[in-house]
Amino acid sequence: MPTYTPPLRDIRFTFEHIAGLDELAKLDGLTHADLDSSMDVVGEFGRFCVDKLLPTNRPGDVAGSRVVDGRVVTPAGFKEAYAAYFEAGWSSVPFEPGYGGGGFPWLVALAMQEILNSVNMAFALCPLLTQGFIELLTVHGTEQQKQRYLTKLISGEWTGTMNLTEPEAGSDVGALRTRAVKQADGTYRISGTKIFITYGDHDMAENVVHLVLARTPEAPPGTKGISLFIVPATLVDDDGALGERNKVNVVSIEHKMGIHASPTCVLEFDGAVGELVLDEQQGMRGMFTMMNNARLSVGTQGLGLCEAAYQAALQYAKVRTQGRAVGSPAGTSSPIIEHPDVRRMLLTMKAYTEASRALCYFNARQVDLAHHHPDPDARAEAAQLGALLTPLSKAWVTDLANEVTSLGVQVHGGMGFIEETGVAQLYRDARIAAIYEGTNGIQAIDLVLRKVPLRGGAVLTEMVSRMRATAQELAGAPGALASVGSRLADALDTVEEANAWLRRNAEDPDQLLAAATPYLRLLSQVVGGWLLGVEALAASRALSGAPSDDRAFLEAKVATACFYAEHLLPMVEGLIATITSGKEALFATPADAL
Amino acid sequence: MPTYTPPLRDIRFTFEHIAGLDELAKLDGLTHADLDSSMDVVGEFGRFCVDKLLPTNRPGDVAGSRVVDGRVVTPAGFKEAYAAYFEAGWSSVPFEPGYGGGGFPWLVALAMQEILNSVNMAFALCPLLTQGFIELLTVHGTEQQKQRYLTKLISGEWTGTMNLTEPEAGSDVGALRTRAVKQADGTYRISGTKIFITYGDHDMAENVVHLVLARTPEAPPGTKGISLFIVPATLVDDDGALGERNKVNVVSIEHKMGIHASPTCVLEFDGAVGELVLDEQQGMRGMFTMMNNARLSVGTQGLGLCEAAYQAALQYAKVRTQGRAVGSPAGTSSPIIEHPDVRRMLLTMKAYTEASRALCYFNARQVDLAHHHPDPDARAEAAQLGALLTPLSKAWVTDLANEVTSLGVQVHGGMGFIEETGVAQLYRDARIAAIYEGTNGIQAIDLVLRKVPLRGGAVLTEMVSRMRATAQELAGAPGALASVGSRLADALDTVEEANAWLRRNAEDPDQLLAAATPYLRLLSQVVGGWLLGVEALAASRALSGAPSDDRAFLEAKVATACFYAEHLLPMVEGLIATITSGKEALFATPADAL
Repeated sequence: MPTYTPPLRDIRFTFEHIAGLDELAKLDGLTHADLDSSMDVVGEFGRFCVDKLLPTNRPGDVAGSRVVDGRVVTPAGFKEAYAAYFEAGWSSVPFEPGYGGGGFPWLVALAMQEILNSVNMAFALCPLLTQGFIELLTVHGTEQQKQRYLTKLISGEWTGTMNLTEPEAGSDVGALRTRAVKQADGTYRISGTKIFITYGDHDMAENVVHLVLARTPEAPPGTKGISLFIVPATLVDDDGALGERNKVNVVSIEHKMGIHASPTCVLEFDGAVGELVLDEQQGMRGMFTMMNNARLSVGTQGLGLCEAAYQAALQYAKVRTQGRAVGSPAGTSSPIIEHPDVRRMLLTMKAYTEASRALCYFNARQVDLAHHHPDPDARAEAAQLGALLTPLSKAWVTDLANEVTSLGVQVHGGMGFIEETGVAQLYRDARIAAIYEGTNGIQAIDLVLRKVPLRGGAVLTEMVSRMRATAQELAGAPGALASVGSRLADALDTVEEANAWLRRNAEDPDQLLAAATPYLRLLSQVVGGWLLGVEALAASRALSGAPSDDRAFLEAKVATACFYAEHLLPMVEGLIATITSGKEALFATPADAL
Repeated sequence: MPTYTPPLRDIRFTFEHIAGLDELAKLDGLTHADLDSSMDVVGEFGRFCVDKLLPTNRPGDVAGSRVVDGRVVTPAGFKEAYAAYFEAGWSSVPFEPGYGGGGFPWLVALAMQEILNSVNMAFALCPLLTQGFIELLTVHGTEQQKQRYLTKLISGEWTGTMNLTEPEAGSDVGALRTRAVKQADGTYRISGTKIFITYGDHDMAENVVHLVLARTPEAPPGTKGISLFIVPATLVDDDGALGERNKVNVVSIEHKMGIHASPTCVLEFDGAVGELVLDEQQGMRGMFTMMNNARLSVGTQGLGLCEAAYQAALQYAKVRTQGRAVGSPAGTSSPIIEHPDVRRMLLTMKAYTEASRALCYFNARQVDLAHHHPDPDARAEAAQLGALLTPLSKAWVTDLANEVTSLGVQVHGGMGFIEETGVAQLYRDARIAAIYEGTNGIQAIDLVLRKVPLRGGAVLTEMVSRMRATAQELAGAPGALASVGSRLADALDTVEEANAWLRRNAEDPDQLLAAATPYLRLLSQVVGGWLLGVEALAASRALSGAPSDDRAFLEAKVATACFYAEHLLPMVEGLIATITSGKEALFATPADAL
């Protein structure tokens, strides 16, 4: 099994030069979270993850979660690992101090999530689902709901779930049928079947609290008629004590390609007692509160898998010898890292991983600014930029996770296909991230239909202007940076060509939908190149006077941006032709002749 | 579980218009294999596969092969399925009639392999490994070896294995250490450990015959010193009767990400009795005999998985309703096939599958011409074109298998990640095909170092000329075809730009190695577009006067070529920039700073 080391040097660099953490830490409420303090938290959490969670990753994959007597039993070691996680207080780091949270920036939470997913994605899903519940309740819960549930969810004593999906309602949430009938005491009785409920039951905490989307009897069809309910697995008395079991049953758990340790449940709500959140039919408004952050977190799952796969492949490529590299003495066998094609794979993994980190952390910066900046205009601006970036963070980074973990397998050759090596698990685990929390196709549709048009298109235009400024700065810099600048400028021309095409076709939704996925890839590919360009400029500046033990890191930053600009950025030249060819070819053959 | 129907209409079309089977069937030795007779065989085999082998695919994945008391036990149903396969004579179809073979064209065998891999890739590996042994023995065996082994391998009564890989000798075959010591009776004693031996032991046939690469005591290092041995698991008397077990032990079998039913063995040769094939130190010459066909067959595995994934996704997309497509009545829910982004995924799957079929079958045509054409020059020309195409068939099609099975998962949404749906298995099974039989990186190196320079580059140049002629014919055709022609012509300009760059850098192997993988993709992507263009022209011609029930198929052929030209071919514009950027960025960062 490969070892994993939290990439603290790159996390710190990205905190500094992409996410501007020092500036964030000057905002009210975040002043305890300066760069050094934040890195202390991340570093300590990294040690915890490597010590306590990494060892459970492969055993958890092999054993999987099981249903025993109608309850979910997690793999050996998970209960103890969760207890340690809860006792150390890791679950509370970014949440409201008023309810027991640590009040750290979202950025710091995201770096922790990256590491958590690098060591054990199946485990990481439990806090991830709880996080969504916490955010929603923080904004929309009554004070009583917060006292009863929020504090226990933030502390990690209880965990939360999201119950959206039903057999006929996946991407189309509005099609859901679960019913909620109001009782004389103000509570509701919830009945229906929910599927794909992550950690819908488990044995790691003493209560599981479900957030359930359901429909009241008179509600209109579609998303407008959806209401939101808190449904605890074990009922909670007014004084907070646990009472009897609610009428929520685990019907079964799924046999999945990956994340075996994470129980994906079919839940039957059989007249279960629920509490309304917000007013009736306000459910979707509530969901949107947490959706952006949840999507960014799923992108970060992809980042964590990229990093783990890269480290595994790099280690293997340094020790595995096969064949003789050009220039090596006759009769010797070279580490495969010396072969150009292996080097190409490793650099692709490294460049995409660092670009993904830059994107997710930059996106998290917007979340923090939108929450903490004193100026309401600045808050709105950050919220909009964050909203534009979110489908990129979710879809591009999870697509890259499939690509990068696949390269991780490939670098290992035949050993990559053997489960004991560990990279096959990363490849299998990664595959779900492009699907859940809105498929990547849905993300692309969100991008072209809702995010590109934000503020009349100005949010996008302003981001393009920022990228142009970086390209110009690079073009004026010495050496390799100038060439990165010129390639980035070319790619930005292509982005503007694509944007113009979207504007011209704004009245024809099928055109936009046909272009959505290649457009998301194009824009993301350029944003990734831009952020690596920003990092290269910062690294180049830092090089003069850098301590000798940091020079290799900084020089590699510049080299990685060059590699990306030369080998990965040119992809956009192919994508633009696809985008502008439009919908016609998609519908030339009738469905029944396919 | 999705149903699978052998794609006989497209197989027949490809036989006719890409592989020219009618012309092949005029050659000596192939006259019984005209189009109708060949399709009868393929059709009958398709029914057999669907009836007998498809039902074992998922149970075989779940159960896997196991080692019991030192011997491999295959999953329930495999033994019976193999017996039916053997008794029906399917294993013998393409081989030498003099030793019991059916003497059918390789093309027909390949179509059968496609179907076999669509229904059960893990099963298909047993005949695939046997095939390599048969080919080698047909060319290089003594008459006694042929009588003793070849007839039983062709009939399928016994099966064969390939023992190349050792722990320190994977891609670098020359590093192998297994020793062979000559005895007074002319036999050899073989000692060493071989890994990754597919069907290295099993319970489906009464003998397993190993082809083993080993080194005699005085042999020079590297590939030059390798000799080739037949090592039966159970010894065979001079009269052909089975004697005692040879000294070959199953140490273990691997836990793999996919093809669980196919036992991948570690074998210990402990002074096992072996017979020399060819002279000592002629082993690699022997291996090269079967390598091209084996690689083409692995490409065909990729094709089979693409077809299976496409059919599964298409079926699901027609029945699964979610959301409302643009233009559908309010309040209705549309089959997801009506959504542009789903249509894009399905068409990508369809276009790549049909292009892969065209490439593999066109490649097989060259194998048949090289074997049967009366004119030695024509034979040599076909052999060279086949050699050029082989790395494309192997690497591109297996890369596409990863992409297409991944799209198959994605079209299914969350259900795609659930094992019972079946597409997750296709995705897991597919992943090995880009690795074994020479990793796809090795294929790309073979392409740029050995195949592009064939006959001074003329083999490649002639293929480009053929593609140019098709582009010109398309450009002069009416309607959508003209636009396919113009896009193909642009792509061919890009191919020539890449070829010129390779020529300019011919003296710098690291440059060629750096460009190898993107060059293989570029050339393959254009060859695929060319072959679909050839098909579109043929379909367009056939449309006038076509029976009404065939029109939809022919019109879809034209539409698929258009989709490919607009949506998939433009990728080459990104690849060329990567190729010509060269090796520099790959080596800018020293290995220890990665």
